[in-house]
This record gives sequence, C-alpha cells and structure tokens, in this order.
Amino acid sequence: MSETKMPEDEASIIERMDVFFKPKSVAVVGASRGAGKAGHVIFRNFVDNKRRGLFRGELYPVNPNEDSILGYRCYPSLPEVVGDVELVVVVVPARVVPGIMEDAAKKGVKAAAIISSGFGEVGEGELEARVKAIAQSAGIRVLGPNCLGVYDSYTGVDMLFLPETKTLSVGNVVIATPRPMPGSVAIVTQSGAFGVAAIDYLAGHEIGVSRLVSFGNKIDVAEPEMLLYLLHDRETRVILLYVEGIEDGRRFIDVAEKVTKHKPVVALKTGRSKAGARAALSHTGAIAGTDRIYDGLFKQVGVLRAGNMEEFFDMARALALQPPAEGNSIGILTDAGGPGIMAVDECEARGLDVKRFSDETIRRFEDLKGEGKIPSFATNYNPVDLTGAVTSDMFEQAAEILLEDPEIHGIIVLGLHHTPALQEDYPDRIARLSKAHTKPVVACDIGETEMAMYIRSRFTKLRIPAYSSPEDAARSMAVLANYGAYLRKRGRFDEYLRSYLEWVGSQA
Amino acid sequence: MSETKMPEDEASIIERMDVFFKPKSVAVVGASRGAGKAGHVIFRNFVDNKRRGLFRGELYPVNPNEDSILGYRCYPSLPEVVGDVELVVVVVPARVVPGIMEDAAKKGVKAAAIISSGFGEVGEGELEARVKAIAQSAGIRVLGPNCLGVYDSYTGVDMLFLPETKTLSVGNVVIATPRPMPGSVAIVTQSGAFGVAAIDYLAGHEIGVSRLVSFGNKIDVAEPEMLLYLLHDRETRVILLYVEGIEDGRRFIDVAEKVTKHKPVVALKTGRSKAGARAALSHTGAIAGTDRIYDGLFKQVGVLRAGNMEEFFDMARALALQPPAEGNSIGILTDAGGPGIMAVDECEARGLDVKRFSDETIRRFEDLKGEGKIPSFATNYNPVDLTGAVTSDMFEQAAEILLEDPEIHGIIVLGLHHTPALQEDYPDRIARLSKAHTKPVVACDIGETEMAMYIRSRFTKLRIPAYSSPEDAARSMAVLANYGAYLRKRGRFDEYLRSYLEWVGSQA
Repeated sequence: MSETKMPEDEASIIERMDVFFKPKSVAVVGASRGAGKAGHVIFRNFVDNKRRGLFRGELYPVNPNEDSILGYRCYPSLPEVVGDVELVVVVVPARVVPGIMEDAAKKGVKAAAIISSGFGEVGEGELEARVKAIAQSAGIRVLGPNCLGVYDSYTGVDMLFLPETKTLSVGNVVIATPRPMPGSVAIVTQSGAFGVAAIDYLAGHEIGVSRLVSFGNKIDVAEPEMLLYLLHDRETRVILLYVEGIEDGRRFIDVAEKVTKHKPVVALKTGRSKAGARAALSHTGAIAGTDRIYDGLFKQVGVLRAGNMEEFFDMARALALQPPAEGNSIGILTDAGGPGIMAVDECEARGLDVKRFSDETIRRFEDLKGEGKIPSFATNYNPVDLTGAVTSDMFEQAAEILLEDPEIHGIIVLGLHHTPALQEDYPDRIARLSKAHTKPVVACDIGETEMAMYIRSRFTKLRIPAYSSPEDAARSMAVLANYGAYLRKRGRFDEYLRSYLEWVGSQA
Repeated sequence: MSETKMPEDEASIIERMDVFFKPKSVAVVGASRGAGKAGHVIFRNFVDNKRRGLFRGELYPVNPNEDSILGYRCYPSLPEVVGDVELVVVVVPARVVPGIMEDAAKKGVKAAAIISSGFGEVGEGELEARVKAIAQSAGIRVLGPNCLGVYDSYTGVDMLFLPETKTLSVGNVVIATPRPMPGSVAIVTQSGAFGVAAIDYLAGHEIGVSRLVSFGNKIDVAEPEMLLYLLHDRETRVILLYVEGIEDGRRFIDVAEKVTKHKPVVALKTGRSKAGARAALSHTGAIAGTDRIYDGLFKQVGVLRAGNMEEFFDMARALALQPPAEGNSIGILTDAGGPGIMAVDECEARGLDVKRFSDETIRRFEDLKGEGKIPSFATNYNPVDLTGAVTSDMFEQAAEILLEDPEIHGIIVLGLHHTPALQEDYPDRIARLSKAHTKPVVACDIGETEMAMYIRSRFTKLRIPAYSSPEDAARSMAVLANYGAYLRKRGRFDEYLRSYLEWVGSQA
C-alpha cells in the first residue's frame, strides 16, 4: 500500500502493533520443560524459528522453577531479565496474571499477549478488569486474554500452543496443527480455536497465510487497530475476519471503509441465531447484536460477508488468487451438463448473469464445430458444454473465446477429469491463456480421489482457485463480482486492479 | 424390505428391471480393441469383473470389424451371437442405433442400455423416436440414450465408459474414475457426468454404493420404475436422485410415497433458475418446470431435497450411517467455542432446537466439574464447551450424559483435534457409547491436513458421519430430524428404526 498516505495517528498505531509481529525481544512468561504444556510449545516455537533464522529477536524464558529451558537461561521473573523486553507472551494461570503485568510494567514492556484463559469468559470479570487497569496505566498494549496470540509466517513469531505434530498411540507422528507457508491471507479472529482450524484448512488447500491474530476477550487491541495494521502490511492482500461481536461500531466503520478500498475484507460473523448469540456470550463475552445490523454495516463499508465457514475460506481463496470481476456477466465452460446447470443455478441465486452469448461468440463456436475442433453436438449458448468428448485442446480453444469476449466478465471452468480423452494438462493451458487477460477465472473438478485432487491442486498452483462443487465455484465467482462492484462504486476498480497485477507480477 | 407385500405389477417391474442389474447374458454392441474407446472400456469392465468372479453372466462382444476382443470371440451382429442375450449395451454412433435395435428385437433381447449420444439432446428427435418405436413394439426396455447405463457393485455390471485409471504424461497411473466399494447408497441420475462425479466423491469419503443408474434422455425407463426397483433392493438403504425434470408427476408421487416410508430418498433437482432451466433443456431435453412445484411435490411425498451438490452427498452420508432423529432437540458437544456457535446458528436456521439443557443434565455436568473430571471453566448449557483443555475422557463422559438425556434427540460432536491433550481415540470412545443408544450422532473436525483426515475417516468407519465444517454437520443432523419427522407423521418411525437397527446389526 505504498500509494496510501499514512496519517500520523495511523503511523503510531502501526508502530505499536508492530511489536506483536516484529518484536526485537520476547519473553515467554510460563515457559516450561513439560512436553505437552502450552508454555513449552510456545517457547519451543520461538526457539525453533530462531534456529531457522526466521525469528530474529532476543528470546527469554521466564519461570521461577527452572534454570534453563532448551538451552536458554531461564529467569525467575520479568524484572530480572538481563536485556530489554518489548513483548511478553503470558502463559500462566489467570490468578497470577495481574502480578506478571505489574512486573511487565516495571520492566518497561510495550506489549503483552495474554494466552491464559479464566477471565471474563468464566465470570472472572474483576480479575480481567485488574489486568486491564495495570496495562492501561503502564501503556502496555494487550492481546487477549483467552486468546492464541499471533502467528506470523514471515517473522517467525508463533504463539500457537497447539503443537505442529501429534504422536499417535501406534507411534506414528502426524501433522496436527500445520503452520501454513508464507502467503497473502491474514486471519483476524476472536475465536482462537477457529483461527487454528483456519490455518489447518488453508494449509491443506495450499493457501499461504501472512499473519494470524487472535483476540479472545479483547480487553485492549481489537478489530479496528488490527485492520489498520494489515492495511499497511505489504504481505497481506486479503483479510479474513472472524467476529462474534464488534464493540466500537463507529470506529470499525471508519477503519473498514479505508481498508476495503485497498484490500478485500471477508467477514464471518457468528451468533446469528438466538441460541447462537447466547453461546457467543458464554464463549468470549461477546454481545452478538442483531444480525441484520451487522449485515447492513458490512455492506455499507464493503466488507464481504460469508454465510458459513466453508464459504468464508472459499472466498479467501478466490480473492487471494484472482482479480475482481468488472461486471456480473459470467461465462460457464463445462464438459458435464448436470454440473453446468448447478453452476448456472447458483450464479443466478447470487445475482450473477449467465446470459446467452453474443452472436459473435456463438459464431466463433460454430466455426470451431465446422472445423471439427469441438464436437458438433456441443452446446454453445452459455454454458458451453463440450461434453464427454472433450480434450485439452477443446478446453483451451473454448476458454480463449470466452476470455476474448468483452461482454463476459468472469469465467467458470467445470473440467470434470473423468472424461476419457481429457489430459491432465488442461489446467496449465487455461492458466496460460488467462494470464493474458485481467478477468477472473475459477475452476471446479468433482471427486475426492487421486485425479480430482491433482487437478484442483494444479489449478491452485497456477493461481486459479479450484473447488470441489459447481456451487462453490459459482459463489466464489460471485464474491469476485461483488468486490468488483464495490470497488467500482468507490471509483477504485482500476487502481485496485493495477496494484493487484503489479503484485502478481512481483510474485512470479 | 421383506416386510413389504409386493403387488403383482410391482413384481413384474422388478423382474424386468432386474435384467439391467443381474443379466444372465450381456452383449456389448460396439465393443472395441481401441484403448481409449468407450466400447473398449465397457467391454473390459465386464471381462475384468467376470475374471474376478463378480460378474456371473455370459458375455459377448459384437463388432463386425473384429474377430476377437480380449480373448472373447467377437460376433459381427447380434442375431449371429450363439446363445441367448438378455441385455445389450449399445455403444455405436447414433445413426446406426435403430438398426442395432432391430437386431436386438430379432434376437429376443429383453433390455438395452443405449450409451450413445446424438439424439434428442442435439435436436435429433426423429432418430430418438425411431429407436423408441422399435423398442416398444419389441417389448425391449431401454435405458438412455445418452446415458452411462448401470454400475452395480454387487453384480459386476459396469457400463461406465470412464476408465478407472488414467496415465499421466510422466507415466504415473492415477485413479481417475474410482469404482466405489459395495455399500448401501444407490444413485439414480439423469446426468451421467454427475453420476460419475458422485461415485468419485462417495468413494473418496469411503461411502459404499449399491447401484448407480443413469437415464440420460430416458425414452423409456425413468425415475418411478427405478425407485420401485430400489425399494425392493436389499442392498440399498438410501436413494440419491439427481433430476433435471420429472415427466410423469402423478406416477412419481405414487411411487415416491411408497418408497420414502421405507427408505430415505434424497433429491437434487437442478434447473432452478431461468438460465438453469434453459441449460437443462439443451442438456437432456428436460423441462425443468417451476421450482416451487417441485419443492411442494417433494415435501408432500417425503423426498428430502438438497440445496446443492455438497449438501446432497452430505445428506447421503448421514442417512447411510445414522438412524433418523425422534425429535428436533439437538445437543452440541465441542472443544472449540467459535465452531460451536456456527453449529448452533446453522441448527436454528434449519429448524432444529438447541435449547438449554434440563436441570438434571446441567447438574450432571456440574458434578463432573466438582469431581475435576471436566474443566471448571467449561460451559455446560448447550453447547457444552469442554475448551482447549479437553481430553478423550472428557469427550466420552460428556457424550454419555447427552446420550442419556431423554430430552435430546441428536448429538453433534465438534471435536477439533488441534487441542494439545486430545488423543486420537476419542472417535472410538464416542462411537462405542453411541452404539448403546438409538439417537443419531454426527461429528465435525476442521482442517485439511493429516490429523483432521484421520479423525474424520475414523469416525466414518465407525458409522458416525464426520464433516469438515460445523455447518455441514448441523445440516446433516437436520436431515436426520426431517426424515424422522416425516416417518413419525406417517406412523412409520418405529418400524423404520427397527429395520435400520437390524440391518446395522447384520453388517457388524
């Protein structure tokens, strides 16, 4: 976001938030030798990342019962640490947290991530208030309590107390909480468990993550500051926001409006139902509020709302890999009639237009038929159904016609791999063509066995998000059209597209 | 369905349909030596299954240009085949199909699956009418044309022209169109491509399939007869129905009402939108009809309608593995607050009730807290949130309380595996408990890497369908409640449950 001028107060927020992501020194209070303990896993994450050269700050374990942990000299308390401490990660029982915060104040700590739970969410509001008061008077910025803190794939800050692997009873080691590769998606979440589930999901779909931040009870740092921070974060292109309740609506509106002009923000807001709102209250103490109010609020500021978890992640994949659509007219290319109809149904349900192609485009398909390049029995009005006789050549030629049709703003390719003559190179061919154009392309292949996995993974590697159902592909195209419409309304479409293309170019 | 008395006309329909699934003799007209050709793949499927002892009928290739194929003597035409032919599979160009059907009539063939396309769906209505007239006057029952025919995991009838494996350009062989293992789900589909996609999906989710039948242009055999057939089919417990349009609504209603009292029928009806209806017309010539009419029709006869493809399959998994719910009061058990709220939201959106537990159940949880068996900060009003401190023991004890609560009719277990102390045996423990009860249990674990895959797969093996999002789990519970409500309305709940439990017992 080099083109964004940064007001002074924003600059100061960025500087303060930076401590959570790029600390020069970190103390883990409650660091432990005990294998399964949170204080062990977190300290070890830092140690491992420091050895890899990823985490570059100073690192101090604090625990009065240990002399050293993993080769690091252990300090009995924060004030006794030899050296500055910018950031503390607090992993001790709730009742001792106020004392730790007083120590942190003495030590001149700038920021604290309080992982410990046992505060407002279980009725210990008074304890929480004490922690808040100490932090405020000392000017310490706080994440949490009752949170996961930060995972940063670029700087090696990893406060996730969930170990990357687990050992099964038979002795096999398996990935349990994967750390996703560096990427462009940031996750901002009130629910820690959900944050971890998110990185497991995204890692499995080969989508890289820039930073994850979990707020928990958010006694201090909340959504608005974090959104501002991510607006100016070069690595982040898409922001995923999981919320149960937003406290300062006005501030959220101000910030979200700024951010969504430059980067898409996708929100999953839960506690929609009565029982759900009750559950949210006992989860993070969030007041879920009337769902319709959130709907209106999000729409107003260009936040793209997901209806459920899967849609949330599907939207992220689309926005991370493809540009927005300049209009809502969609072309569908398929080798399977039934799935083609499913995609059409979902497109229309989402406000996209799957209209009959222009005469010119229909004529170009007729020419291909005349030349024997696509089957004479293919349908070519939209969807284009190349039928079970499809080959990679046919997919390529048909995609080219749709990419060149100025009346089509986005393309859904449903390439079911089962057809006998279709080779595995068709994702590569379509991706190569699509690079010469700026309209979004999304793909779908149905199936859960080898070839389907390969095709979807190959598409993803080529920056074309590939889904396992036609409806998922259609709704992902819808979010690209919706974000495009919002940017146009704000007069920012061209600027966004330019910045997006520059960024994609820089990644190649 | 031994308890169902079969009227005489039904018995005769079953006998005629049996020829498609259990033919004593099959001729493949258009059998070929050419590796990629449909006529080769289909013939080879039969040859392979005969060698395995799975297909037990006689087998004849018919092709005037070959002497033998895969060791089988090849006949120039049907009338020249030495031996009876009950069923023909027709894989020749559309224009020669009428001649083949005349030959079939001469030969005394009982049934024909016409795989070939190039009929009504591409404007060749006259050709289609000729084929139909020949078949009718000869009393030959016809599947298709423009269809995939039949796949039967029990009898080895496999007309799928999509090869099981493909060889990638690097030389590696991968599964492309898996043949699912024998199981209890039948697939009845108008779209062939969708049928294949369905078995790829179900195979990947380890759900067995009894039979798949694809109708295509359905000039003869259509949904009603096939539903009747499957009603009396011992292997089939759940029927999946993909339709673009139903012609004989009255007949469909009569039959569907009969079937749904004994076996759940799940329908995916596409062509809902205007553009979708247009696409359906050019796909299989189906008149999609007003969507609301179908909605009403399905509801009236107890057909469970899926909103999209993924829901369709998710519903199948739930109904294949779990009994229906006797009411709509659902208990949710989780180790992750956020996902718990998502499940609650979706439950309420689907008409399920996630009400505060009874005093007795809340007290039982308080007792566990008192004994230190679950965390004191766990919430226990519904959802039960055992938090990130969960262990397998805690999941087991909490599940037991919910299973024993007579006011709860179904349980959703959201066991996110990421929590540090949760062992991989919790699916086994929950499954063991649930066997002593008749209320449905569904599960969810979020993530796409190793441990999540293991947990979901393990649950599935133990007959608990496990989904990758809380909303998917909730909507699957909803279908179990909806089917339960329909059965109760018809006074068939107890009978269904008894028959279901007997069947599960026989599988163990």
